[in-house]
Amino acid sequence: MMEMGKYLKRVGDDLWFTETDRDNLKIDYRIKDIVFSETSPFQHIMILDSYDFGRMLVLDDAIQTTAKEGYIYNEMITHIPLNIHPNPKNILIIGGGDCGAAREVAKYPNVERIDMVEIDEMVVQASKAHLKEVSGDLSDPRVNFIFDDGASYVKQKRDYLYDVVIIDSSDPVGPALKLFELEFYTDVYNALAEDGLMACQSESPVFYSEMMVNINSRLRSLYPIVKLYLATVPTYPGGFWSFTIGSKKYKDTNPDAFDKETKYVNKDILESCFALPNFVKERLEID
Amino acid sequence: MMEMGKYLKRVGDDLWFTETDRDNLKIDYRIKDIVFSETSPFQHIMILDSYDFGRMLVLDDAIQTTAKEGYIYNEMITHIPLNIHPNPKNILIIGGGDCGAAREVAKYPNVERIDMVEIDEMVVQASKAHLKEVSGDLSDPRVNFIFDDGASYVKQKRDYLYDVVIIDSSDPVGPALKLFELEFYTDVYNALAEDGLMACQSESPVFYSEMMVNINSRLRSLYPIVKLYLATVPTYPGGFWSFTIGSKKYKDTNPDAFDKETKYVNKDILESCFALPNFVKERLEID
Repeated sequence: MMEMGKYLKRVGDDLWFTETDRDNLKIDYRIKDIVFSETSPFQHIMILDSYDFGRMLVLDDAIQTTAKEGYIYNEMITHIPLNIHPNPKNILIIGGGDCGAAREVAKYPNVERIDMVEIDEMVVQASKAHLKEVSGDLSDPRVNFIFDDGASYVKQKRDYLYDVVIIDSSDPVGPALKLFELEFYTDVYNALAEDGLMACQSESPVFYSEMMVNINSRLRSLYPIVKLYLATVPTYPGGFWSFTIGSKKYKDTNPDAFDKETKYVNKDILESCFALPNFVKERLEID
Repeated sequence: MMEMGKYLKRVGDDLWFTETDRDNLKIDYRIKDIVFSETSPFQHIMILDSYDFGRMLVLDDAIQTTAKEGYIYNEMITHIPLNIHPNPKNILIIGGGDCGAAREVAKYPNVERIDMVEIDEMVVQASKAHLKEVSGDLSDPRVNFIFDDGASYVKQKRDYLYDVVIIDSSDPVGPALKLFELEFYTDVYNALAEDGLMACQSESPVFYSEMMVNINSRLRSLYPIVKLYLATVPTYPGGFWSFTIGSKKYKDTNPDAFDKETKYVNKDILESCFALPNFVKERLEID
């Protein structure tokens, strides 16, 4: 066995990547090829070609998205809020360096402007060059790439009047930590129009339910309408993933209006994703 | 590193169990203790106490159920068919050695008889003794334990007139292989009353979608009503798990009638579990 950096090892002829972020659970993926591997000012970035999930974007030791199933996460974090808002025109995406969320937003012809604020330009460049199954080599003219800290950016955008803000952050460690704090959520609230809404990834109800509950209660302190929804993401440990909506006015999805070409989301999913198992309701103290 | 049998290894002071059934994905669970480890005439059986999921039943190298989240699978394979049938009285469970499915069925006071046919008595004994979080040390007098091959048993039960048959098999390798074949499904059909229905676990839509599709088409050749539903099972690779209903008469769940105490299933889940993502519909060739 040969160690190759912190995250890859060679066993016989085989190359393996191991997710090591949890103490008691390790997931090993057999890898065909290291497509890209560089350290940015913020994190180590790899694009790995895996046997089971095709190309994968890996930040430090955590898989962010894959060619085979990245669409699940990216469709869920975008189409749910964009379907709840009846006429979203100005969209802000915070994070989302793989470009998959912006690519989904660009499917809405009435959207006029997509500001995408990603702290790490190298993630965008690597995803555009080497992970086109997710990024689509995004080049829609409505997308405005801003390489900046999402928390600082949104603080300056008080009264900018975004219709929808999508918080597509990595886990609450390192550069993304601020994106889970009340101060940041308050700044997002202030950057939204008076009928605006936000959606964020809110972690695993199995492994990080304390963070999911914290996000929920922070958003409840700001918004009259807070709703959690779920999807299954095969490459996130525990399978379940949660997302949370904070909305100033609009409450429900409108499945009949949905007409996008997608691989996961459809009219049924736009409703069923809000059906929560009892163990999730109990954590959120919902009847 | 010390190898301990085929499935366990010691790394420093830590004991790890590795699921090795997939060539390109290995999942390692840190283990506190080996509670039970014996080889039966059919397979190697372990009860392991894990850090993340509590006690786990492991057959050969595959986790079957865990103390922490085994209720998801067991509730989904039972309450969906029992809620579709308006008055289920005679129930047959094939497999289900962890006793979790029978325990859920026993929550229905109108059920008169629960025949549970499990090929491997040692799985039942180990689960009753060492995995009470799942088995509940099942001792309901309506449960009839039959230690026999499920396929042979059901062949003799032509015209027995079961209301619901639940096929709670392990994966289609080794002793469970026959439980995925048309001959067996035909025998199940013949053992059902004229308004009876069956439910089976139908594998992962991510990793074993070919088997999921085969089960679907075999059941379509027998039943007028065939419906697939999904749950997220954290300890099954890929997160998603599918179940399939074959029904002679009854089609829909009746959420308003559901009054059981459960940790996953509720009125909302009884409907939302049938909402299929586009990639699953495409595999099944459903609009």
